[in-house]
Formats: sequence, C-alpha cells, structure tokens
Amino acid sequence: MTRKVAVVGMGHVGATVAHYLVAGGFADDLALFDTNEAKVKADALDLRDAMANLPFHTNLTVNDDSQFADCDVVVSTLGKSKLVDTPDHDRFAEFKFTRTQVPLVAKKLVDNGFHGKLVVVTNPCDVITSMYQKFTGLPKNHVMGTGTLLDSARMRACVGEALNVDSRSVVGFNLGEHGNSQFTAWSTVRVLGKRVLDLVEERNLDLANMEERARQGGYLVYKGKKYTNYGVATAAVRLVNAVLSDSRTEMPVSNYREEYGTYLSYPAVVGRDGVVEQLQLDLTDVEKEKLATSAKYIKDRLKSEEERLAENEA
Amino acid sequence: MTRKVAVVGMGHVGATVAHYLVAGGFADDLALFDTNEAKVKADALDLRDAMANLPFHTNLTVNDDSQFADCDVVVSTLGKSKLVDTPDHDRFAEFKFTRTQVPLVAKKLVDNGFHGKLVVVTNPCDVITSMYQKFTGLPKNHVMGTGTLLDSARMRACVGEALNVDSRSVVGFNLGEHGNSQFTAWSTVRVLGKRVLDLVEERNLDLANMEERARQGGYLVYKGKKYTNYGVATAAVRLVNAVLSDSRTEMPVSNYREEYGTYLSYPAVVGRDGVVEQLQLDLTDVEKEKLATSAKYIKDRLKSEEERLAENEA
Amino acid sequence: MTRKVAVVGMGHVGATVAHYLVAGGFADDLALFDTNEAKVKADALDLRDAMANLPFHTNLTVNDDSQFADCDVVVSTLGKSKLVDTPDHDRFAEFKFTRTQVPLVAKKLVDNGFHGKLVVVTNPCDVITSMYQKFTGLPKNHVMGTGTLLDSARMRACVGEALNVDSRSVVGFNLGEHGNSQFTAWSTVRVLGKRVLDLVEERNLDLANMEERARQGGYLVYKGKKYTNYGVATAAVRLVNAVLSDSRTEMPVSNYREEYGTYLSYPAVVGRDGVVEQLQLDLTDVEKEKLATSAKYIKDRLKSEEERLAENEA
Amino acid sequence: MTRKVAVVGMGHVGATVAHYLVAGGFADDLALFDTNEAKVKADALDLRDAMANLPFHTNLTVNDDSQFADCDVVVSTLGKSKLVDTPDHDRFAEFKFTRTQVPLVAKKLVDNGFHGKLVVVTNPCDVITSMYQKFTGLPKNHVMGTGTLLDSARMRACVGEALNVDSRSVVGFNLGEHGNSQFTAWSTVRVLGKRVLDLVEERNLDLANMEERARQGGYLVYKGKKYTNYGVATAAVRLVNAVLSDSRTEMPVSNYREEYGTYLSYPAVVGRDGVVEQLQLDLTDVEKEKLATSAKYIKDRLKSEEERLAENEA
Repeated sequence: MTRKVAVVGMGHVGATVAHYLVAGGFADDLALFDTNEAKVKADALDLRDAMANLPFHTNLTVNDDSQFADCDVVVSTLGKSKLVDTPDHDRFAEFKFTRTQVPLVAKKLVDNGFHGKLVVVTNPCDVITSMYQKFTGLPKNHVMGTGTLLDSARMRACVGEALNVDSRSVVGFNLGEHGNSQFTAWSTVRVLGKRVLDLVEERNLDLANMEERARQGGYLVYKGKKYTNYGVATAAVRLVNAVLSDSRTEMPVSNYREEYGTYLSYPAVVGRDGVVEQLQLDLTDVEKEKLATSAKYIKDRLKSEEERLAENEA
Repeated sequence: MTRKVAVVGMGHVGATVAHYLVAGGFADDLALFDTNEAKVKADALDLRDAMANLPFHTNLTVNDDSQFADCDVVVSTLGKSKLVDTPDHDRFAEFKFTRTQVPLVAKKLVDNGFHGKLVVVTNPCDVITSMYQKFTGLPKNHVMGTGTLLDSARMRACVGEALNVDSRSVVGFNLGEHGNSQFTAWSTVRVLGKRVLDLVEERNLDLANMEERARQGGYLVYKGKKYTNYGVATAAVRLVNAVLSDSRTEMPVSNYREEYGTYLSYPAVVGRDGVVEQLQLDLTDVEKEKLATSAKYIKDRLKSEEERLAENEA
Repeated sequence: MTRKVAVVGMGHVGATVAHYLVAGGFADDLALFDTNEAKVKADALDLRDAMANLPFHTNLTVNDDSQFADCDVVVSTLGKSKLVDTPDHDRFAEFKFTRTQVPLVAKKLVDNGFHGKLVVVTNPCDVITSMYQKFTGLPKNHVMGTGTLLDSARMRACVGEALNVDSRSVVGFNLGEHGNSQFTAWSTVRVLGKRVLDLVEERNLDLANMEERARQGGYLVYKGKKYTNYGVATAAVRLVNAVLSDSRTEMPVSNYREEYGTYLSYPAVVGRDGVVEQLQLDLTDVEKEKLATSAKYIKDRLKSEEERLAENEA
Repeated sequence: MTRKVAVVGMGHVGATVAHYLVAGGFADDLALFDTNEAKVKADALDLRDAMANLPFHTNLTVNDDSQFADCDVVVSTLGKSKLVDTPDHDRFAEFKFTRTQVPLVAKKLVDNGFHGKLVVVTNPCDVITSMYQKFTGLPKNHVMGTGTLLDSARMRACVGEALNVDSRSVVGFNLGEHGNSQFTAWSTVRVLGKRVLDLVEERNLDLANMEERARQGGYLVYKGKKYTNYGVATAAVRLVNAVLSDSRTEMPVSNYREEYGTYLSYPAVVGRDGVVEQLQLDLTDVEKEKLATSAKYIKDRLKSEEERLAENEA
C-alpha cells in the first residue's frame, strides 16, 4: 500500500537520500534510522519543518524497527566518512566500521520480516552488498549496490564536458568494484551517435585523463568538503525509483554475477523484482581482464573478512 | 531568458538550497559562490555527478562574479553555524562573522550590475536583510529575508501534529524577528475551519508549549546535528519560486515595514517584483506590543552595528 | 506495494487524470478502463508513446478487471459530457447515462475484491458518490467525491484575481452540491489575513458576481470547448495524492454527513483511510439554510433514483 | 527573465502541451493563442481552475500578440486533426489548412519582435518547419520540428516491450520525414549493451513488424480517439525544456541539414541556442538511401507548395 522506503544511516548521504525522497515526493512513508538518535531525530525534525513549504507529503518515523516489515525498499547508507580521510581515500578505510554494522542491521531486517529490496550505498559497496545478502538471506537479485552507477555518471559527465553534450546523452559504463580497481569500459561508451573510441582523434579526447577524473571524482569532492553526498544520493534514489515503479531500466549497479562469483558493478535491468535481467556486454579482452582483476579484488577482501569472522567465532 | 539564480555561501544551507534547486529542476542557470573555493567547487562537482541520474538539467558556475549581472534571484546563505554553538543558540552569535561579509557581497552585486531580487537567509536575518538593502541600494521591496517563513512552518507543524492534520492545512504566522523575540500570532492561526484559539479547550491544546517548540525547533535540530538546513532551505526555495513564477503568494517573510521602521517578518504578497503588497493583520493589542518589542530589538541591534561601522570609519 | 491507481472512464476527464498521474510520476501501476475499448487502448498507447520522453515510469494496463484487487485508489471518471449540452448545462443531464454505469462498475469492484478508496468525479457527483457507496458496500469514509474541491478552486481563483493574489493564498469553501444548488460560504473565505467579507468595501469586491462566476466557471469552460477537464482532473489527482501519501489535508470533498443524511461537499481531512475527520464550520444561519437546501436537493434526486430502481426491479 | 513560452494552436496537442507545462511547473509565463477565441479562453480558464490545486504557478495570457516579444520558446501546435481522417491518415492531409496559417503566425512573430526559438509540431512537420524558418527569417538552427522525436519514442517503446526493458534504456533513432517516408535506422538502435540487430536471432525479434508498429503508432492512436496528443505533446515539452535549460541533449528532431538541403529528422544536440551541433551517424548504405528518399519527398512537397504560393502571388 503506497510507497514505503527506509534509510539506515543518517550521515551526509543518508540524510540527502531522505531529503531528496521527501522533496521529490517519491516516498509516502519514510522510516529513518541511525544509532545516533540525536542526529536522526534532528534530521527528521528538520524535514518536518520543511513540510509546510513542500508540495508533497511524506510520513516520517525514527528508529522504529517494526517499519521494516512492509518496506518496499531499504537503503543502507550507514558509514563513517571520517575514516576515509586517508592519503589515498580508500573506500575500504570505512570497512572496519561498516563490517560491524551490517550483521546488526541485517538481523533487524530479518527479525522484523523485511521482504523487500535492499539498496546498498555503504562502502566498500560490493563487499558490503555481499555481506548484506548473506546475513539477510534475501534472494541475490533482491540485494543491489549503487556501485558504479555513480562512477558511470561521473565518467558520463567528463565525456559530456569534453564534447559539450548533456551527460544524459552519453551512454556507457564503469565496471567492477566501486573503488580503486574499477575501470571505464570504453568499448561501451557512446555519444553523438558513435563510440567515444572513434571520436578520440577528431575531438582530441584524452580518455585516460577522463577515466582518471571519473575514478578520482569522489576524491576531489571528498577533498573539498570531507564527504560526498549529492552524486551518490541521486544514484541511490534513481535506483529506488526504478524498483518502486518497476521501470526495468538498465543501470550499472552492483549485482551478483555467477561467472565472477561475486557482487560487482555490471549493467543490469532493474525493476520491482530487483535485478530482473543481467546484461551480457561485448567487452574487449583487456576489459574482461580488468573486470576479472576487479572481481578478484572484491572476492579476496570478502574472503578475508569471512575468515576474520570465522576466527572471531572460533 | 530562463531562470537564473545565484547562491552565495556553500555551507549546509546554501548547498541544500543549491541541491534542491537542481533536483527540482527549478533553475536553469545556477551560480554558486563561496570564499572557500575548495568547498564550493566540491559541491558543484558533486551536483554535476548527480546530473546524469537527474531528470532535469542545470548549468552550474563557481565563483564567477559576472553571473550576478542577469540573475533573477540571489540567495544569501553565507554564515558560520559553528558560532551558534552557544548555550542559548542565539542567531546573533553569527553576526560577528556575517556583518563583515555583507558589504563585500553587496559590493560585488553592485559592481556587476545585479538588478534582480535578493533573498536573505543569512543570520541574524532581519538585520542582515536591512544591511543588504542599504549596501546594495536596491529598492526595499526587492530585498527580502526568509525570516519566519521557517518558524511559521514549524508552528504549523506543531499545530498539525497536535490535531493530526497536514501542516499545509494550518494557516497562520509567526511574526517579528527570526530570532528569540519572535512570537506566534495566535489570532491569525486557523485550522479545521476555526481559530486555533477556539479549539484549545475542546482539543486540549497547550499553545504556549507549541509556540515554544516552534521557536525552539531550530535549536533542537541544531543540537542534534550542529546545523539546520532542510527546513530553512525549503523555505528559501519556496520564496525563490514565488519570485520566479510571479505567483503573488502570501508568505511571512522579512520585509520592510514603514510603521515599524525596520525589516521584520510580517506576511506579504511575493511576486516577480518582490514584495508587491503588505498585509494588514488584525492583531490583538498584546500581539501588537510583542511585535513592537521585536521590531525595537531588531532596530537596536542594527543601530549598534551602524554605530560600530561609523566608528570604524572614523 | 508501491502506488496503484485505476481510472474508470477514458473521456476527457479520465484521460487527463491518467496523463497527469503519468506525467507527474504519481502512480506506479495505472489501470485504465473504458467500455469503448478502442478509446482506452488509444489513450494507453498514446501514454506509452510519451514514456521515453518522460522522467518517470508508470505501468499501464487496459480493461483488466483483476487489477482492482489491490488498487490503492479507484477514480470514477465515467460520463457522457455530450449530454450536458443543454441550455442550463445541468450536471444531472448526465445522470440518465451514469446511473446505469455505477452498478456495473461497482459490481466489478466487488467481484474483484477491491478494498481501497474510491474517488468519484462522475456527475451528478454527490448522488453518484452515494450510489457507489451503496453498491460497493465500502465504508462511507472510503468513498469520496471531488465535489466542490473544483468549485472552491474556481472561487479562490476569482477572489485571487480580484485582489491580485495567488489563489493558493485564498482559503475558503464552496459547499453543498457539486451543481447548481452549491454556494460559496463567504464566512469561511479568507485572504490577506482577513475575511473576504471585511475586504468588500475597501477593495470594492462584488461577491455575488464572484460566486456566480465560480458556479458558472464550468459552464464557461464547457461552452468554449464542450467539456471541462484540467480543473477537475487536477482536483481529482490532488485528492488521490492525499490518500496515497496520507497527508491528512483539509479539502472540501463530497463526504457523507450524518446530520444531513447524505453525501455533499463539506471540508474534511483526507488521508490514507479516506475521510479521517469531518470539519465543523461556524457557518452563518443563512449559510446553514443554503446547505440544508442543497442537501435536500441531493437527497431528493437520490430518492427519486432509488424509487426508479425499485420500480424497475419490481 | 524567468521562463516564457507561447503555444500557438489550442487543439488537442496544444492544450496538452499547455497543461503539461503548467502541471510540471516548467513555464512561468505561458501565452496561449488560437483563432478560436472561445476554445483558447476555455482552456485558459480550465487551467486557471486547476491552479489552486497545483503546486506551481504559471501566468496565463490569451491571444495577446505582444507576448511574443520576449518569449523564450514558441511552440506551433496549430492544425486540423479532422482532416487527417482519411484512409491512409496522411499527415499531409492537414497541409491544406496549416499552410495557410504559417504565414499569418510568422508575420505576428516578426511584427512583435520574436527572437527566441521556435518548436514546430504542426504537420506536415518538416515542410511546416521549413516554411516557418523562411517566413520568420529566424536563423535555421533556431527553428526546429519535433519530427521523429515522437516516432523514435514509439520505436523505443516497441523494442522495449519486445525485450521487457524500459524504453528509456533503448537508444536509437527514426530518421527522415515525420510521416510515411520515415524509417528506423536499425544500425543506431541499441539496448542491453548490444545493437538490436545482434539480438534479432537470440530474442526472436521481428524488426519489420516493430518498425511498422512505430510508424503506424500514430494511426492506431488516431483511429481509437480521432487525435493523438500525449506522445507528441510530451516530445514537444521535452524539446522546450532542453532549450530552456540549455541541456545540450541529443534528440532526433527536424533540423536543417545542408547535405540534404532540407529540414528532416536527424539527431542533433539541442540547447539554448537551438540546434547547437548536428550528429554524423554511421548509417548503412541502405539507410542513407532511405534518408535521401525521405529528404527528396519533403523537398518535393515543399517545392510544390512554393510553386503554388508563387502562382498565387502572380
């Protein structure tokens, strides 16, 4: 009955997701969660104070676990962006915090009978998405990470700027880990009716630079304000809306690929049943290799974590 | 030609105003400004990264003063919320910073031929609005502060919650200073087809408590997250949209009232020409007195500042 | 699970409701119905052709009765506007057609287990709303007519134009029948912080003329294009959204009033459970009399119809 | 100053364009025009009646030629859809009416100093777009037709349905005349990361059937309701928004191609300066031939018209 979304983690990203859902009128019921009760209450109050000046209504609840029971989508935005303030801004820096939270949130979801779709923004995105799926026992295609939906948007913006074209008119994907091992699959990138690869000479494009800027985009934003929120929150809400409206839209999100044995970002068709079809791109051999490398990186990190957990249990 | 807005000050409020304008597709050209170049560039980049996943396009510029020339609306959101972290969260705590910035921004506006409408969020809102008008020399009705548009929304939310009714269905105004001397003009507050004053007994309403919660609403939010942004940014954007669309909407905003000789919040009709009509409420004597007290407070603070400036010049 | 709406009757109003729901992204699943299969298929195809150029997705079905089972809201827009092409444009002119359709639609709703809220636009609105409630057996507060939500908007527009103020800033209600016996309850109409009654002299207002223009608004539109659609469809969608988002908004809609023993337009608080509270206005004696007259008119028409039906059955 | 749009022709399409602009809050000032004064007044009144229930405000004027002076975009939607009610539904059937109107509208635009962008929906689209450019003397890239932006949306919907994918995830173009000589350039159509041509076998696609359904889409809609409006109005508004927001989006619109010596639909980058770049597709030889044939057809029809006009003048 009507659209019900939960956001777990009221940091910069979670609060922006909540605000965008409210401002856009995308959710009817919005359940907000954070271990910092003062923060999540403050955000809920602040959003309530916005309501009379907003055209659409959204019902807000705070830290009410029972809301999970009939949520259409739960978005995990928990994290600790301060941890990322390292020289190389590695998203794994957050892992020592986030890996402790996933089992707790997953337990709450299970205990309260959550049976909707799970959208994971929490970093390191692919590993955390895997962990959520494992800990909740939800079907693999019901758990998705925003992954390189953001990085692809960054790449599309870089290409768009270079060619003076709307980023929405640039098609193509960054693949693999939502992290340093990701890459732009240039063979998939098209604009102006052509492959970008065929425009390099004519338009004097520096693909390596564009790819680096896309990959480093988050770092630049992070460097300037110590967090990133608008780009990633917009990607998350777009993914949520695809699920709610069953739009069956192609998007590069973190989804479980059997052939790689892991969650990683690869375009998939997203609808009300989560990942409803997985694309099969015609990647070049080099791209396939890069993807395999990225997949291995994710799996190794996940394996380490599982071993750590096993040791702890032992 | 199309909608052009500038936001001066990329703190929590300014960035949220910018994001909401972009996410809502409300502005075509958006000029962002901050003395912290890294911060404003980071926000612009973050918003750019959102673009490919957003339905509407907005052109962004950063710290380009020439953009002021043909802006429809400039929003001043500059501030230093950390300064407000005092026991009584007095909005005047920011004044020692903001009063130094207004002349600088005003000079840029004048030097670049700005002739649009100015929306002031910067605190202390009423005094800063007065200063902006003076320093820019713009017509008084072209300079407005968000004032108690936010506080009124808070009051309406409190009333709405008490009666289990949409805050949009609560009509009425908080008047005076966007600060501690403000008050709810209960004689103006109506809901369920009646004056709230006539519902007190039947519904067991505690008006004093509601007024206090409305006045303290900002503090609670501040306390929980060390800033407030969603409520006030939404109020600011609503005011911007009223100007852009010439909607001629009644809103309690900070506008210059001759009879009080100062800017203060009192409902006015807002359209493309700024404040196009000022309401004349039938306030009670007590309310009139409260308003006079609030007006005097604002004027005294402004006078102190003017004396300080005169001394500095001498 | 997500927002599901049905529209029954793809005339000018139904098609506009469907288009506005789709264009605004307000519904996830939209079930369209019409006895003219070619027409409803054409509209669905036309809306589908719009989809790739729209930001939001909506799933469309055509004449699939099983969709009623889990609809949040069903909107009845069936009618035959040609019948209204009489000298006095009486909305009862449509009755000879619409009264034959209500039992058929109600049966489908019941047979398919519909248990959502019913929004009735079909004319004569109050009588048809009564009939729908009776034939479906739904709780009285789950069946509502758009009633004078439209007429009130017309009145507010007339007042707004006279005073050069946004119609959204005019508060107040047209009451009674969505038809010729309705009236503007001027004691409820407020703008610029005052009762309109107190502005008559100062602003040289001709209330009788404004009331007549509000009542005749539909006729003028009808005269110019042989149907009306935008005003009423917008009212209907606003009502649908109030239900979906549980906004608990005050609106003058056709709802069952015990003291009058009939459906008629009187402001009510509308939320997910339909009419969740009924207002008690402080009407003047003259207004109360007008309302009683309008109520009697509706009841008499309904009674005639019930007698006619009883005879037919006999 | 803010967004100003005019719509010339309040038939089904023009009225729907106007309504969508108003409902979406896309225009601040909207000037409506029609030779049938009763109709355009009725639509303006109907839209005004919607305003109080809409979140955004739009200022409406009716048949006020002076408004053209500073319009950002003028949309020509004039036509006579009844004329198309022929066995083959040829869009040229409307030409005998529309060709008489273009010079009149163009004169008004010129006389009132219009210097914005012109978006032509009027059929036969490509010939009428040519005529508008000639009669107004506007730069060629400031005059555009919606052309196959609609037909491409239809094709994308057909492909999307066949593959159970969002039509927004289907990239590709119908080219040439917005009429019977158009064709789908299958070499440009991509979905699921591949050329549709490479999916034919695996997915058992009948491209000829899909192309025919796209081409005939309008006829089916027309057959069912005697006009088409939602698909084409949505395409027009998307084009208008691309101009207003300077989004520089790739779209297949009718634009003047030097190499073909005529207006025809071919993807272009559209921004505030109209057509700001023309794409150069890698079409197959067969596609090039089809495009040349379509171009010749448009040119011949335009030439006949010019000869007719010359004769009339002689």
